[in-house]
Amino acid sequence: MDFVYKRKMNYYETDRMGIVHHSNYIRFLEECRCIWLEQLNMPMSRLESQGITIPTLEVECKYKHAVTAGDVLLIKPIMSEFNGVRMTVEYEVTEEKTGKVVIEASTKHCFTNMELKPINLKKYNEEFFDGFMSLMS
Amino acid sequence: MDFVYKRKMNYYETDRMGIVHHSNYIRFLEECRCIWLEQLNMPMSRLESQGITIPTLEVECKYKHAVTAGDVLLIKPIMSEFNGVRMTVEYEVTEEKTGKVVIEASTKHCFTNMELKPINLKKYNEEFFDGFMSLMS
Amino acid sequence: MDFVYKRKMNYYETDRMGIVHHSNYIRFLEECRCIWLEQLNMPMSRLESQGITIPTLEVECKYKHAVTAGDVLLIKPIMSEFNGVRMTVEYEVTEEKTGKVVIEASTKHCFTNMELKPINLKKYNEEFFDGFMSLMS
Amino acid sequence: MDFVYKRKMNYYETDRMGIVHHSNYIRFLEECRCIWLEQLNMPMSRLESQGITIPTLEVECKYKHAVTAGDVLLIKPIMSEFNGVRMTVEYEVTEEKTGKVVIEASTKHCFTNMELKPINLKKYNEEFFDGFMSLMS
Repeated sequence: MDFVYKRKMNYYETDRMGIVHHSNYIRFLEECRCIWLEQLNMPMSRLESQGITIPTLEVECKYKHAVTAGDVLLIKPIMSEFNGVRMTVEYEVTEEKTGKVVIEASTKHCFTNMELKPINLKKYNEEFFDGFMSLMS
Repeated sequence: MDFVYKRKMNYYETDRMGIVHHSNYIRFLEECRCIWLEQLNMPMSRLESQGITIPTLEVECKYKHAVTAGDVLLIKPIMSEFNGVRMTVEYEVTEEKTGKVVIEASTKHCFTNMELKPINLKKYNEEFFDGFMSLMS
Repeated sequence: MDFVYKRKMNYYETDRMGIVHHSNYIRFLEECRCIWLEQLNMPMSRLESQGITIPTLEVECKYKHAVTAGDVLLIKPIMSEFNGVRMTVEYEVTEEKTGKVVIEASTKHCFTNMELKPINLKKYNEEFFDGFMSLMS
Repeated sequence: MDFVYKRKMNYYETDRMGIVHHSNYIRFLEECRCIWLEQLNMPMSRLESQGITIPTLEVECKYKHAVTAGDVLLIKPIMSEFNGVRMTVEYEVTEEKTGKVVIEASTKHCFTNMELKPINLKKYNEEFFDGFMSLMS
C-alpha cells in the first residue's frame, strides 16, 4: 500500500571516493516527492499550471551508509506535517539488497504562487489541499 | 587580449574512475560562454530581459586528456560563425599546469525569443548583434 | 525485443528556460548504456571488478525538440561499431507521448584497464567481448 | 583576513522556477571547504595522497533567499568544532550585491582512510591536525 520510490544509482552520481556524492541525495528526495505527487494525480506540471509551486525551505540529511553506481535505493516518504501552508516530509531510505539505512532525511516546504509568494493551499485550491491531506497517515 | 576562462575542477565533478565526468565539460563550455558575454556587457540576464535567449543546437566534444578535482582548465572560446541567426563557438581547452589539451569541442546555437521561436538578432536588437559580431576574429 | 531505456525527466534537470538543460542528455546516454550492459549481465561494477572500464572518447549531440520535467524519454541504443578496441553507440531518442525526436546522438568509447591504459577486449576477456559483439545488429 | 569564497551562479544550476536549485548549495559548500583547505596548503589531493579523506556525515540547510544565474554568493566558512575525529563547519552565505542572507547551513564530517574507516587525525598526521586546528577561531 505504502508508496516507495525505487532508484538506481548512476555512474555520474559517484565521485572520486568511489561512492555516490552526498549532494545527490537531496535530488533523489525531490524525485521521490514528484513521483509521489504524480501517483495522486498532482504532478508538478499540473500544480504549476494552477499557479502553485512548492519551494524547499529546509533540508536535513544524515549519511549512514555509502552506496555506489548500480546500487538501488528504496525511498519511502512520510508526510509528517501538512496544514496547507507548510509541509514536512521525512524519508526512510534503505539499500534494496542489504536493507541498510543509507540516509535519514527530512525536508520542509511551503506553498507559493509562481512569484514565490506564500499561499494557503486550503483557500487557494481545495482539491490539492485534500490530496496533500490524504498523505497524512 | 584574448578572453580565457579559468575553471578549477570540483570534487563533486569527479566520478568513480577518479576523473572529471565527461558530461561536466558541456557545462564548463556554457559557463565560459556566459562569462564571455558578461565581459561584453551582454550577460544572459540582460539578453533575457530583452526577450532573447540562446539555445544550444549541437554539441561536439572529443576527450583527449583526463583531469581531476583541483586541476584547473583554461578555456578559450573562438567565435567561428555568427550571422545573427546562428552561431558556432569552438573551444581550446588546456590544463593550466601541464598545458595538455583536455578536450576539443564546439557548440552551435541559434537565437530565439523566450518561447524558443527563432529570431534574427540583426533585426531584433542591433546592439547585441554588434556585440556578437565583435567576437568574430 | 529491442532494448529501450525509459527515463522520466526530473525537476532539477530543467533550467531557467523551463526545459531540460542540454548537458543532462549526455548523462541520460550513459545511464542507457549502463542499463543495457546490465541486461547482458555485464554491469559496470562487474567489468570494473575484472579491471575493465569504458571511457568516453567522443560525444555528438544534436538537440531537436525541448522537453521538461515530467516528460518521458525513450532511448534506444544502437551499437554501430565494435571491435574489442573501440565502440560507437548511436541513440534514437524520442518523447514517449508525442513520439517526437528529442536528440540525435552518438558516443565513441574505448576499453581500458583501471589506469586508463587501452586494452583489447578480445584478448583481455572473451566473455565480455562476446557480450558486446552480441549487441551488433 | 577571513576567508570568503566567492561563487557566481551558473545557468545550468537554475531550474524551471527560475532560481538556483536547492540541491546545488550543498555543492557550493563543498567547493568552499576545498578552496579553504587549499589556502592552508592542504588540498584534498594532498590529503588523499596521505590516505586521508573527509566524508560528510550530516548536512543542514535553511533556504532564506532565492538567487539566480549571474548572481554571486559570498560563502564564509566557520570551523565550529574540530577535535581530530570530527569537524563541524557552519557557513554564512550572502548575496554579494544585496547582502541578503541566502542560506544558513552547517555540515558535519569525520576523517577516514581511503577505505572510509575512521581515523584520529591527531595520531595519523600531526601537520594536518595542526592545520585544521588553526581554523578554530
